[in-house]
Amino acid sequence: MDSRDPHYVSGSESDADYGHRPPKRARHSPPADRARTNGRTTTSSSVLPPLSLSILGVEPFDEFIGEVADFVHHSILTRPADLQGEIEVEAKIGVLRDRGGNRLNLPVLVETILAPKATDCHFESNMSQAQHQHFNILLNKLKEASDKPGYHSSSIAYTHAHLVDTFYASENSREKIRVTRNDKTGEVIATVKKVRLGNLDVYSPKQAADWRISVNVEVPVQHPLGTPTHSRRKDRISYSHEEFVVDLTQVASYSATGSQPELLHELEVEFANSRLLTSAAAKRNLEGSPEHERSAFDELIRAFVNNARILARNANGGWQ
Amino acid sequence: MDSRDPHYVSGSESDADYGHRPPKRARHSPPADRARTNGRTTTSSSVLPPLSLSILGVEPFDEFIGEVADFVHHSILTRPADLQGEIEVEAKIGVLRDRGGNRLNLPVLVETILAPKATDCHFESNMSQAQHQHFNILLNKLKEASDKPGYHSSSIAYTHAHLVDTFYASENSREKIRVTRNDKTGEVIATVKKVRLGNLDVYSPKQAADWRISVNVEVPVQHPLGTPTHSRRKDRISYSHEEFVVDLTQVASYSATGSQPELLHELEVEFANSRLLTSAAAKRNLEGSPEHERSAFDELIRAFVNNARILARNANGGWQ
Repeated sequence: MDSRDPHYVSGSESDADYGHRPPKRARHSPPADRARTNGRTTTSSSVLPPLSLSILGVEPFDEFIGEVADFVHHSILTRPADLQGEIEVEAKIGVLRDRGGNRLNLPVLVETILAPKATDCHFESNMSQAQHQHFNILLNKLKEASDKPGYHSSSIAYTHAHLVDTFYASENSREKIRVTRNDKTGEVIATVKKVRLGNLDVYSPKQAADWRISVNVEVPVQHPLGTPTHSRRKDRISYSHEEFVVDLTQVASYSATGSQPELLHELEVEFANSRLLTSAAAKRNLEGSPEHERSAFDELIRAFVNNARILARNANGGWQ
Repeated sequence: MDSRDPHYVSGSESDADYGHRPPKRARHSPPADRARTNGRTTTSSSVLPPLSLSILGVEPFDEFIGEVADFVHHSILTRPADLQGEIEVEAKIGVLRDRGGNRLNLPVLVETILAPKATDCHFESNMSQAQHQHFNILLNKLKEASDKPGYHSSSIAYTHAHLVDTFYASENSREKIRVTRNDKTGEVIATVKKVRLGNLDVYSPKQAADWRISVNVEVPVQHPLGTPTHSRRKDRISYSHEEFVVDLTQVASYSATGSQPELLHELEVEFANSRLLTSAAAKRNLEGSPEHERSAFDELIRAFVNNARILARNANGGWQ
């Protein structure tokens, strides 16, 4: 069994890079039988040598974040050439429901990404008023803490906006045209057609909420003619942190018939800066680019996923 | 809407700990529109300020590792009091198959943990000879690299054993008794009854392999009387790294009828030190214990999960 000799090395295999110095974690433990443990200095005190993160000395590649990064990257780079507008990448917090209206129930114990169109379910971007208020309190406290001297991270900025969206049918596409106004001054803030590039659903059975990642293009258009099909009033608090904005919104949705409005409570996190994101996407893993430019996109996605997870896990309870 | 004021703080909410200093990642990017980005010094060069890991400044709790830690912890602490023996915690690399013998197919895109008994499938602890040889080459190269001066992690030790297991029916339990001998000298190495405490299956649709975590107790017993029911020859290379042993084993399994042996190729990673693990489990999150003792168990599980992932992801291709 020569091929199993420990010193056999196949010429066709390329060497991994073993040269870097990965982190180790300080570790302590009571004395114990170390008979089968090797390669480290034994000690008679209660302090064990640091434990490496793995047999390779590093954390393995994060498959979940890699999948989200691939999806967003693909959606951005394959968008139709005639769609000129702002790329919007957001994660909405809500619930995945089956056809019967119950929360989706798959035979898995932890968060995972659904295969597109493989499960008969829909995403509901809504939460209870109590959950909404809970997030408001948590985010306010975080903003307050971030204003204090010596805070460990970047400060959080806060804006409160009252907006009215009015929707119109579009003559030559299925997307509606949205006119957004300042509810107090009537000033038109945006007139856009929002085109969906793709969705990715995250099922989170351990938490009270699931989430959906959406990639859209908001294409500026001329102010539409005709009668609006429906409208909605938005009372929105936006918390900005570095490259991200968390929007906490109360929505009153009015149908054209003038009946009682439907009340919704929405929470989403989105990229603050469309140009920065698309620029990073274009340079992702680009040969010849410096490493920090090649990896910038995946670092942005990691922080985005972390933020969405933190929001989803706080649909009940304090910060986790 | 007073309750949504940014400075409203509910007295019933406890403050999170914002005092620690989490890591940030150095980050560079081309100049871009920073209009909606706030809270950081703007810069005219191509270097952006470091990006925080999240709006809280830290990575969120890892739900997957938490679930594995809870499972192993529960299995160890709730074992029957009359089972005196070595706790064995291992992850086997193989494939989850449905009733028809095909690889399991759930509508998810990334690794997740199966809810126990919710899916009609079984785990097959086997791989092709080519995969087995591939792992042998990878692990040998890693061992070789770890022997060189200045290697970044602990060294890897290597042993090669030829063993024979002989199985006997047990009089008063459904578990068989296993007698393990050195195949060359005939020396008896162990006479045990292996009692399963629990399994947890990890479905990994992006990889060529799934994995199963098993918690067992190996109870030493008297040498059995009577005729063996079956036997197996094991040609095993063990690679030891810190608290873990990776076993790469070729198994020839003989039924009692004396027909041709069935050949299997197995790969597993297990904890090297049962007493260390059970001691850490007993102190997990124990009130009054120092933080390093309370967290030692979860740190061990993190490295264990990382090692299992690294093995599963290399069922095809080089180290990932």
